[in-house]
Amino acid sequence: MAKVVVDVMPKPEILDPQGQAVAGALARMGVAGVGDVRQGKHFELEVDDSIDDETLHRVAGSLLANPVIEDWVVTRA
Amino acid sequence: MAKVVVDVMPKPEILDPQGQAVAGALARMGVAGVGDVRQGKHFELEVDDSIDDETLHRVAGSLLANPVIEDWVVTRA
Repeated sequence: MAKVVVDVMPKPEILDPQGQAVAGALARMGVAGVGDVRQGKHFELEVDDSIDDETLHRVAGSLLANPVIEDWVVTRA
Repeated sequence: MAKVVVDVMPKPEILDPQGQAVAGALARMGVAGVGDVRQGKHFELEVDDSIDDETLHRVAGSLLANPVIEDWVVTRA
């Protein structure tokens, strides 16, 4: 079994209220030096070595991410 | 400005219903070769070069993750 990581992030043009809430909280806590914050999802999949990149990409784009508003990166760890 | 990535995952002993839902959907879709799936959060922060690792770790453990049920990894990208 190998590990595959899929990171899903809102597209740059999509507002991210969760990330904005974190950025606002940081400012209120007095943490300086942090600008923009974006929040997405992080998936870790245990996969057989037999699974190919095309299948992984299809799974990520159909089940893990919403291609209309999100980008994703598949990484074999 | 530099980019910092924080990945937050449920601790191994914590149940992950979101990840289990994905694993179940994969099985129903006929995708073979995927075992366990775990879902967490992925944060991307734009930070000044002045911010130190200790501050980043404190921010991650107090604002981005719940240390009781989650582990996190801070990576300077």
